[in-house]
Amino acid sequence: MKQTFAVIGLGRFGLSVCQSLVAAGQEVLAIDNNEELITSYKDLVTQAVIADAQDEDAMRELDLGSFNHVVIALGQNIQASVLSTLIAKELGVKHIIAKAETTMHGKALQKIGADQIVFPERDMGKRVARRLLSHNILNYLELSDTYTLAEIRVENGKLSGKTLDDLNFRKQFGLTLVAIRRGKDVQVSPPATAVIEKGDTLSVIGETMDVEHLDSELSK
Amino acid sequence: MKQTFAVIGLGRFGLSVCQSLVAAGQEVLAIDNNEELITSYKDLVTQAVIADAQDEDAMRELDLGSFNHVVIALGQNIQASVLSTLIAKELGVKHIIAKAETTMHGKALQKIGADQIVFPERDMGKRVARRLLSHNILNYLELSDTYTLAEIRVENGKLSGKTLDDLNFRKQFGLTLVAIRRGKDVQVSPPATAVIEKGDTLSVIGETMDVEHLDSELSK
Amino acid sequence: MKQTFAVIGLGRFGLSVCQSLVAAGQEVLAIDNNEELITSYKDLVTQAVIADAQDEDAMRELDLGSFNHVVIALGQNIQASVLSTLIAKELGVKHIIAKAETTMHGKALQKIGADQIVFPERDMGKRVARRLLSHNILNYLELSDTYTLAEIRVENGKLSGKTLDDLNFRKQFGLTLVAIRRGKDVQVSPPATAVIEKGDTLSVIGETMDVEHLDSELSK
Amino acid sequence: MKQTFAVIGLGRFGLSVCQSLVAAGQEVLAIDNNEELITSYKDLVTQAVIADAQDEDAMRELDLGSFNHVVIALGQNIQASVLSTLIAKELGVKHIIAKAETTMHGKALQKIGADQIVFPERDMGKRVARRLLSHNILNYLELSDTYTLAEIRVENGKLSGKTLDDLNFRKQFGLTLVAIRRGKDVQVSPPATAVIEKGDTLSVIGETMDVEHLDSELSK
Amino acid sequence: MKQTFAVIGLGRFGLSVCQSLVAAGQEVLAIDNNEELITSYKDLVTQAVIADAQDEDAMRELDLGSFNHVVIALGQNIQASVLSTLIAKELGVKHIIAKAETTMHGKALQKIGADQIVFPERDMGKRVARRLLSHNILNYLELSDTYTLAEIRVENGKLSGKTLDDLNFRKQFGLTLVAIRRGKDVQVSPPATAVIEKGDTLSVIGETMDVEHLDSELSK
Amino acid sequence: MKQTFAVIGLGRFGLSVCQSLVAAGQEVLAIDNNEELITSYKDLVTQAVIADAQDEDAMRELDLGSFNHVVIALGQNIQASVLSTLIAKELGVKHIIAKAETTMHGKALQKIGADQIVFPERDMGKRVARRLLSHNILNYLELSDTYTLAEIRVENGKLSGKTLDDLNFRKQFGLTLVAIRRGKDVQVSPPATAVIEKGDTLSVIGETMDVEHLDSELSK
Amino acid sequence: MKQTFAVIGLGRFGLSVCQSLVAAGQEVLAIDNNEELITSYKDLVTQAVIADAQDEDAMRELDLGSFNHVVIALGQNIQASVLSTLIAKELGVKHIIAKAETTMHGKALQKIGADQIVFPERDMGKRVARRLLSHNILNYLELSDTYTLAEIRVENGKLSGKTLDDLNFRKQFGLTLVAIRRGKDVQVSPPATAVIEKGDTLSVIGETMDVEHLDSELSK
Amino acid sequence: MKQTFAVIGLGRFGLSVCQSLVAAGQEVLAIDNNEELITSYKDLVTQAVIADAQDEDAMRELDLGSFNHVVIALGQNIQASVLSTLIAKELGVKHIIAKAETTMHGKALQKIGADQIVFPERDMGKRVARRLLSHNILNYLELSDTYTLAEIRVENGKLSGKTLDDLNFRKQFGLTLVAIRRGKDVQVSPPATAVIEKGDTLSVIGETMDVEHLDSELSK
Repeated sequence: MKQTFAVIGLGRFGLSVCQSLVAAGQEVLAIDNNEELITSYKDLVTQAVIADAQDEDAMRELDLGSFNHVVIALGQNIQASVLSTLIAKELGVKHIIAKAETTMHGKALQKIGADQIVFPERDMGKRVARRLLSHNILNYLELSDTYTLAEIRVENGKLSGKTLDDLNFRKQFGLTLVAIRRGKDVQVSPPATAVIEKGDTLSVIGETMDVEHLDSELSK
Repeated sequence: MKQTFAVIGLGRFGLSVCQSLVAAGQEVLAIDNNEELITSYKDLVTQAVIADAQDEDAMRELDLGSFNHVVIALGQNIQASVLSTLIAKELGVKHIIAKAETTMHGKALQKIGADQIVFPERDMGKRVARRLLSHNILNYLELSDTYTLAEIRVENGKLSGKTLDDLNFRKQFGLTLVAIRRGKDVQVSPPATAVIEKGDTLSVIGETMDVEHLDSELSK
Repeated sequence: MKQTFAVIGLGRFGLSVCQSLVAAGQEVLAIDNNEELITSYKDLVTQAVIADAQDEDAMRELDLGSFNHVVIALGQNIQASVLSTLIAKELGVKHIIAKAETTMHGKALQKIGADQIVFPERDMGKRVARRLLSHNILNYLELSDTYTLAEIRVENGKLSGKTLDDLNFRKQFGLTLVAIRRGKDVQVSPPATAVIEKGDTLSVIGETMDVEHLDSELSK
Repeated sequence: MKQTFAVIGLGRFGLSVCQSLVAAGQEVLAIDNNEELITSYKDLVTQAVIADAQDEDAMRELDLGSFNHVVIALGQNIQASVLSTLIAKELGVKHIIAKAETTMHGKALQKIGADQIVFPERDMGKRVARRLLSHNILNYLELSDTYTLAEIRVENGKLSGKTLDDLNFRKQFGLTLVAIRRGKDVQVSPPATAVIEKGDTLSVIGETMDVEHLDSELSK
Repeated sequence: MKQTFAVIGLGRFGLSVCQSLVAAGQEVLAIDNNEELITSYKDLVTQAVIADAQDEDAMRELDLGSFNHVVIALGQNIQASVLSTLIAKELGVKHIIAKAETTMHGKALQKIGADQIVFPERDMGKRVARRLLSHNILNYLELSDTYTLAEIRVENGKLSGKTLDDLNFRKQFGLTLVAIRRGKDVQVSPPATAVIEKGDTLSVIGETMDVEHLDSELSK
Repeated sequence: MKQTFAVIGLGRFGLSVCQSLVAAGQEVLAIDNNEELITSYKDLVTQAVIADAQDEDAMRELDLGSFNHVVIALGQNIQASVLSTLIAKELGVKHIIAKAETTMHGKALQKIGADQIVFPERDMGKRVARRLLSHNILNYLELSDTYTLAEIRVENGKLSGKTLDDLNFRKQFGLTLVAIRRGKDVQVSPPATAVIEKGDTLSVIGETMDVEHLDSELSK
Repeated sequence: MKQTFAVIGLGRFGLSVCQSLVAAGQEVLAIDNNEELITSYKDLVTQAVIADAQDEDAMRELDLGSFNHVVIALGQNIQASVLSTLIAKELGVKHIIAKAETTMHGKALQKIGADQIVFPERDMGKRVARRLLSHNILNYLELSDTYTLAEIRVENGKLSGKTLDDLNFRKQFGLTLVAIRRGKDVQVSPPATAVIEKGDTLSVIGETMDVEHLDSELSK
Repeated sequence: MKQTFAVIGLGRFGLSVCQSLVAAGQEVLAIDNNEELITSYKDLVTQAVIADAQDEDAMRELDLGSFNHVVIALGQNIQASVLSTLIAKELGVKHIIAKAETTMHGKALQKIGADQIVFPERDMGKRVARRLLSHNILNYLELSDTYTLAEIRVENGKLSGKTLDDLNFRKQFGLTLVAIRRGKDVQVSPPATAVIEKGDTLSVIGETMDVEHLDSELSK
């Protein structure tokens, strides 16, 4: 069954949600009370409507309650995000994602009925800090408190020209090498005869401590 | 060698960068021209200074040029982010990360001398859209244009109670199963006898199309 | 056991709550982030504190959670009333009364945790309209959808000089005459020999229709 | 003779007056100089006009002088409320009700010619304080300095299951029991055989001290 | 008995009142809530106080009620002029002069209790128009609807060199010549032998029509 | 020859000039850049135009230079009054009257080319002060530094019932009695048999000191 | 080949550039986002367009990239000047002149891609200072660090009535006399028989020190 | 005799005047009512004072009248520049230079008493336009309506390697070659044997038309 999406608020965040959904072939209703924003972006979405999300009647007229997912992208205006979340809930929306500025704002939105809270500035700040602290880790997923899956760039020649077998990789580093990327090519589950070169990106899985250890080993 | 960090601008993003760096045991110099913000967060960082990052003399006095990493977290004020990036560059900072609002703003910062540009609202918007579109994919890393590494939650009982061997997992789905998480336990490189249960989270690697196929198979 | 009261917001409504409580011998903590207001009214309450009710730490320091009753009198600033209600709730306040501007605002406050919502402007508007519509009804209590208890002023001489017995009051009007006020004197449960005079105020109980009928009978 | 009503100012208070009058089948002229407000509420009242109540010619054109009752609901703007009260008076309005913010504002309006002054925030503050101080008193009317008529909720079982006769109600409490409400039913002038249950609401009349004594007797 | 004066509001009008009174050797209390104004003019008056004239307590503390004359020079702020007039009245000031902007404003101030209303802009506008319309009339007093006392400048030589007797002044012009001013000299009740010269200023009394006739006779 | 008038600026002062001129049957061109003001007063003047008096082309189009008298009534906006005075002068206006706020402002306008400067607030302040200081002087004209012509009200009975002859008025007071006003009647050059009554208004001429002496003689 | 010009920003500086170019017969496209400015000056330029120079699409539509010279005259708004310089550069403009406020602003514009930076206020300040310091030097060109070409006014009669030969001009002053201006006449390369008069303007070339020496010789 | 300078207004223009005067060893008094500006630049000038140039007393206290030259650098605030020019004049300043925004503003300042008016934005706009229109003219002085003195850069090889004699320079171009600059060397009054090279800068004097002709001859 086709999912339906409404995005309330066309700031940078709401706009980016719209663009990504439309790029994925979805139909999106965009709502903002700023006429200029709606006019600018009306070609981007399936339907763009000038309306006040704090006005219950206006939202009912748009049949907001019938949408599967509503994204409340009104972060900085706490009043507006609280009241439009309440209205979306009252109209029966099943899944509400709301953007929040602070922890307390996030808690209020949850009590009002938001199913999921997003903190773009805070979360992106964490990521930037994380990247600053690691040497060559490009990306990572925290699988649990102890296990991490990471992409690490090989910046030096310590491992160069040796097969995984020679290196005894899993034993030496306590990590499973899931894939090797070299330029645009990705070799999944590389065999024991695979060779690591400077400039490769290794996808490894294992305990976070071991990942950090490999990271510093591969640094210049 | 100990790295040094300066963060200019204590909005939500800059604050979050500071908190994460401090939580990781780093020393951080926080700079903002808003006295109230500096007062509120002075206990959070190593040093908090009221100063105007658009004032070259003030930045020179703080010896900004000697820091390894400077984060310009002044996004909404384009003038301030442009001028303080220029000053940081002139003072000899090696690594400058700057927050931008729009693509054009990002380009200007790069020409001025920023080494890395961050777009928190835009990038978080993409992530939220992505999550809305996938059924059970909790997180993912795009290894290349074709390969993806994803964490997928098992929402139905289709695969329940069967071993990987029974399922002929790699053949049936075209994916390598890298890890199985059950509650807080993670089993890396599960053996052929491992059993999948409803509620597990599977870390898989393979072509993006195959990942999306598995995702919809595991949905209710 | 002595009850404790805190009032957040020293506008006309909050101020009036404070004054009435203090007049009744209670101890009241008044909180407002407006220094001028706090200075003006510091002699009026037991303790007056300049603090931001949206700042959880500040509220914790004041031990807000230990108060029996907290009145959130911040109506017009919806954000402030929502966040301070949330903080009061989180800190464990047992009984929260919050002032609201609109129905939707009131609903949000209830979801956040307010125990009782007050709408001063709306409710006083109803009362004024009600008084405009009645001829001589000075006050009334709606006991149920059908029964009303009302104070009616006798504006004409139709009933003058006659005893209740003569008038066969209960039968003629379908109402119980609970009290007769003449100047400062009140005669509760007046006997059958009591006489009604022009200028008296009658407290009657009965069906709303009958009350309204008596009201128009007593008009000039 | 049909009464006519005009309401000047469509804030929360004025709006509530309009709604209550219209609900009672009255014709109401609403006046505000805010076009948006007039547009929003034009279906609510008999006639809605955009006009400046400080402009004598405009008020004369609307024939304001011919209305029986004019409600000046412009509280916060003291200048506007003073001048429009003066104009209404000059045009010959018989009965003017004006909303005031402060005691001094109220006095000015009276000197200018208002017949009745309303202080919504102040009065509602008093009521809230009163309710906070009483245990189970839901509503009350002060008949005189000494006599009160109150609705008290029975919160405990002390009187349960006993007839008024058993209790010797009037003697024990010094009060006349005017009515008993149980759910939606109201029993006026209950007989001596009537039984009081926990959860009932008693309408009593008598001296204020005795009412307060019964109130604390009925508390948990 | 020495009179006492208080001036509320130090705009151009209030300032001018203060200066004139001080120049005449009077003691003046100047009140304004603008600290800068009070500081600028504190040497000008006997006592200059920063206070809000809308604050009854502040006015009572200054013992405003004991002054013989209070000038409320707050014209443009209608609210302030209304409330401070009311307070001055309540405190028992005998003689209140208040500045008004419009006729309606003036009426309100009178109802509130001002003894005399001044309209500087309006009255000076009238004077300027009057002067524009007359040819050589420098100043005038309207004694009644028909009689005027005026100073008229002799701009031509029509009457030059002739005695009053020659001219038969009173008969010819229907006016009494009260005084002749030549340079700095004034001749009161000039004799019949007095001679009029071009450049003299004549003070005449008589019917307004006759004054206007003389005025045009004396024009170039 | 018919005179022509233009008034620039429709504040209270400009408006009053217009009204007085129109009342005297003159044709007046009113200019203001405030559309609302022009609309309100368009029926009052011969022609009302929305235009910026600081725009030379606009003033030339209105043929401002051809008017006999131009009144620049823009006092509070010093820039506007300076530039529009300059433009009026450049366009060849013969007679320019300009309103000023301060002495320095007045000087600048004179240098720029204004023929006459008016200070409404300052001058009216002087008049009010003067009236406060005199007991019964209603109006006065200063004929020179020593001579004054004044209207004095007779507040007591000291002179009552006596003829001028009896009183030896001129000798006793050193003043010429020019006229006696009783109610609406004015007697010019009263004969020696004329009688003064309490309540009369005397027009006298003489030295200022003597006028002030008579003033205090006639006070209660 | 005809050159094409676009001017972005119609403040005093941009306007002056437009006027001068149009006066020289050039075609100019003027761009500003202020509708009022565009309307006022539309007759002055070849084409006047309301557009936001920070909007890449708008600039592309105007084919900004095809212009030979683009003048960014947006000085005070640093953000706008930075972004529109970037856009002009991205669209391929060959020659960009941008106005800057400060040295740092100028540097940023150069990094972004401006070919030439103009500082009107700063440069005119230098010129005014220079003129204040010289006595009679009307204008000058600095040919190099040591050589200056200057126009000096002869204010005294020291050299009057003597031929260049008599004066041995070049030897005495170390300067070449390039031209003598007398009123509107200019004599280039004056012969040895030429005579200098008080009031002439001499164009001389030589070392700056010698120019300054001649300047003081010619002063009163 | 040492000249004294005061600069009123520390915007970019006033600041630049100060810097140039101080660089030339002069003593400068800087006046601004903006405390921040005065603090920033106090080390730059001999004396920096926070004062309002519209306040005559303040200027008198600074003994402004005793300065030889006063620069009024307050352009954008027309009121301030008019009043402070007036005050400087009243205090007896001999030489006043004032910055203006528009022609009309300049005229007003002249009437008020400024000796010289500067229009930085307008004049710099003209220069930029002029430079855009000329090919290689770097600088120029207009000696009269017909004669110009210009520095022209030799951009092509047309004249290269030839002596002035070979070229018959004066005859061919109708211009006198005053100097040749090559790198940092300047040859004044070059002899007939001098050779012109590509890259040289020629200082020529002659009729404007001939200068423009040479300019286009020397272009690529």
